[in-house]
Amino acid sequence: MLDICLLGTGGMLPLPYRALTSLMVRHNGSNLLIDCGEGTQNQIRIQGWSFKPLDVICITHFHADHISGLPGLLLTMGNADRTEPLTMIGPKGLAKVVNSLRIIAPELPFDIKFIELENDFETIDICGLRLEAFRVNHRVTCYGYNLVLDRAGRFDAEKAKGLGLPVKYWSLLQKGESIVYEDKEYTSDMVMGQARKGIKVTYCTDTRPTDSIVSNAKEADLFICEGMYGEDDKLANAKEHKHMTMMEAAELAQKADVGEMWLTHYSPATARPYDFYDKVKNIFPRTRMGKDLMNVELKFQD
Amino acid sequence: MLDICLLGTGGMLPLPYRALTSLMVRHNGSNLLIDCGEGTQNQIRIQGWSFKPLDVICITHFHADHISGLPGLLLTMGNADRTEPLTMIGPKGLAKVVNSLRIIAPELPFDIKFIELENDFETIDICGLRLEAFRVNHRVTCYGYNLVLDRAGRFDAEKAKGLGLPVKYWSLLQKGESIVYEDKEYTSDMVMGQARKGIKVTYCTDTRPTDSIVSNAKEADLFICEGMYGEDDKLANAKEHKHMTMMEAAELAQKADVGEMWLTHYSPATARPYDFYDKVKNIFPRTRMGKDLMNVELKFQD
Repeated sequence: MLDICLLGTGGMLPLPYRALTSLMVRHNGSNLLIDCGEGTQNQIRIQGWSFKPLDVICITHFHADHISGLPGLLLTMGNADRTEPLTMIGPKGLAKVVNSLRIIAPELPFDIKFIELENDFETIDICGLRLEAFRVNHRVTCYGYNLVLDRAGRFDAEKAKGLGLPVKYWSLLQKGESIVYEDKEYTSDMVMGQARKGIKVTYCTDTRPTDSIVSNAKEADLFICEGMYGEDDKLANAKEHKHMTMMEAAELAQKADVGEMWLTHYSPATARPYDFYDKVKNIFPRTRMGKDLMNVELKFQD
Repeated sequence: MLDICLLGTGGMLPLPYRALTSLMVRHNGSNLLIDCGEGTQNQIRIQGWSFKPLDVICITHFHADHISGLPGLLLTMGNADRTEPLTMIGPKGLAKVVNSLRIIAPELPFDIKFIELENDFETIDICGLRLEAFRVNHRVTCYGYNLVLDRAGRFDAEKAKGLGLPVKYWSLLQKGESIVYEDKEYTSDMVMGQARKGIKVTYCTDTRPTDSIVSNAKEADLFICEGMYGEDDKLANAKEHKHMTMMEAAELAQKADVGEMWLTHYSPATARPYDFYDKVKNIFPRTRMGKDLMNVELKFQD
C-alpha cells in the first residue's frame, strides 16, 4: 500500500490558502517527500504525519519554491530526535545547494547521504520501492519521479508440486529467494506466476510537456502533474517560463493512459483552478483538480 | 506615526496556528522588518501589507527560525517588481549568511546593502527613524533593536520675534535648518522648545535577561520581548538555552518602566500562553500576551 498526500498545490510562492507543491508518500513505515518549499513542514503537521520516519527527500530542481523549506524541516526532524541517516536525491549539485542552505542548520543529529542524478533516467531501489528519476524540460535541470511498488506473481503450488519440492521450501521461493534441494538449485521464477500489476505514482513539475513524460508516466495509477496556467492565452507564458498549461497536462495524461491525474503547482494568479475543470476534463476525464492535503491510499488490485 | 504588526509569535519552528516571531513596522511610506522565519511572507500577505516598499530587513541572529524565510521573501519582493536597493542589518557575518541562502535566490532585480553590526551598541539613521541595535545574551551573537521616532520641540514664535527674525525664515528653522540673516547665523535650537516625547519600540529576542535590555528598553512605548516559557520549572531550560521565561521578561519590563509589553517567541510546547497571563500581570500589569498579527498604530502624544 502507498499512502499519498499532496501537501500543497501552489507554484512560485506560498499563499495563505495554498501551500507550495510537495508530495509525501508513506510505505511500510518509511516516508518519502518530494520537494520541500517554504511551509512544507507545516503541511506535514496539519496532515498529522510524522517528521521522524522521513527517510528520503527528493528534490525536482533548485528553484526556491521547491526547496526553501528544507533547512527548517531538517531542524524540525532533528528536534524530533531523528538519528537515522536521511537520503536526499536530486539533480547534480544537490550536496552543494543543501550544504549552502545549511548555513542556518549546521548541527543535525543525523547524517545526510546525497544521491545526485546525472543521467536522463536513473533507477534507485529505496524503502522497498523502485524510484525512477527522469529528466524533464525546465529552465534549470529538473527531474520527474516515479514511485513504483512492484508486485510478484502468484505462487503456483501446482508447479511446486510438479517439481517435487517439499512445502518447507515454498515460502522462501515465494519471497524471491533461491533454494538447493537434492543438489539442484531452484529459483523463484520456477514456481511463481507472471508478475502482477503493482502501484505506480508519477510526480512531474516543473516542465514543458515532453514525450519522455508520456513514456515514463505510462499507465501510472496516479499522475501528479503541474497545471501552472488554465487560460488559453497563457500558453505563451508557459512556453517562455518552461511550464505547462492544464490542457497540456491533460494531453500527457491521455497519451500516457494514466488511472487518474491530479493537477498541481498553480500560478499564484490563478485564484480558482476549478474554473478550468470542464475544459481539462474534456481532454482527460479522469482529472482531479489538486487541493492542499488531498490524499489517497493506493492498494494492489485483486 | 508608527504602524506596528507582530507578524508571528512562535519560537523554534512554525506551527499551523502560530507563525514564527517577526515584526513589521511602517513609517511614512517605508517598511522595516525585524526577523524573517519560514512563513513570514505569508503573514505579511495575510496582514494585507505590501512587500514592495520593504526598505530594511533587520536580523537579530542567524538561527533558522529568525531567517529561514528570507530567500522566499526576497524572491517575492522581486516578483513585486521592487528595484530599489534593500538594506539588511544584522550581526557580523550577515552578508555571508544571506549570500549562502541566496543559492536558491541568485537573481534579484534589486541590490542588497549590508550593514554588519560589530559593537555592543550601534545607532543607524534610516527611513526617518533612529534604529538602535544593542547586543543581548544568546547562544550566538544576537541583537535587540530599538526603533525611535524623535520629536522636536515646539517652535517658539516669541523667541523668533525677540530675535527679530522675519516670518519667512521660521519654517526653515522649524525644520532644523540654520539660516543667515543680516550676516548673523541662527540655528534651529535658538527658536525651538525642548524636544518632546517621541515614539520608541523595543524588540528583544532571543536572550537571557540583561541590565543592558533594561537600559535600552527604558521607557519604550512598546516593549516586544520573548517569553519562551511560562512554567516556573522551565527556568533551568531557559538558562541552558539562553532564553527567558515570561516572568523574567515582565521583570525587565517593570524595571525599564515601559508603556506596554507584548510577549512573543513562545515555545512550541506552550500551546496556551494565556494560561500564564495572571502570573505575568502580577509582575508587570501592562502586559499583553502577543498573538499573530497583533498590531497597533503608535502616535505622538497630544
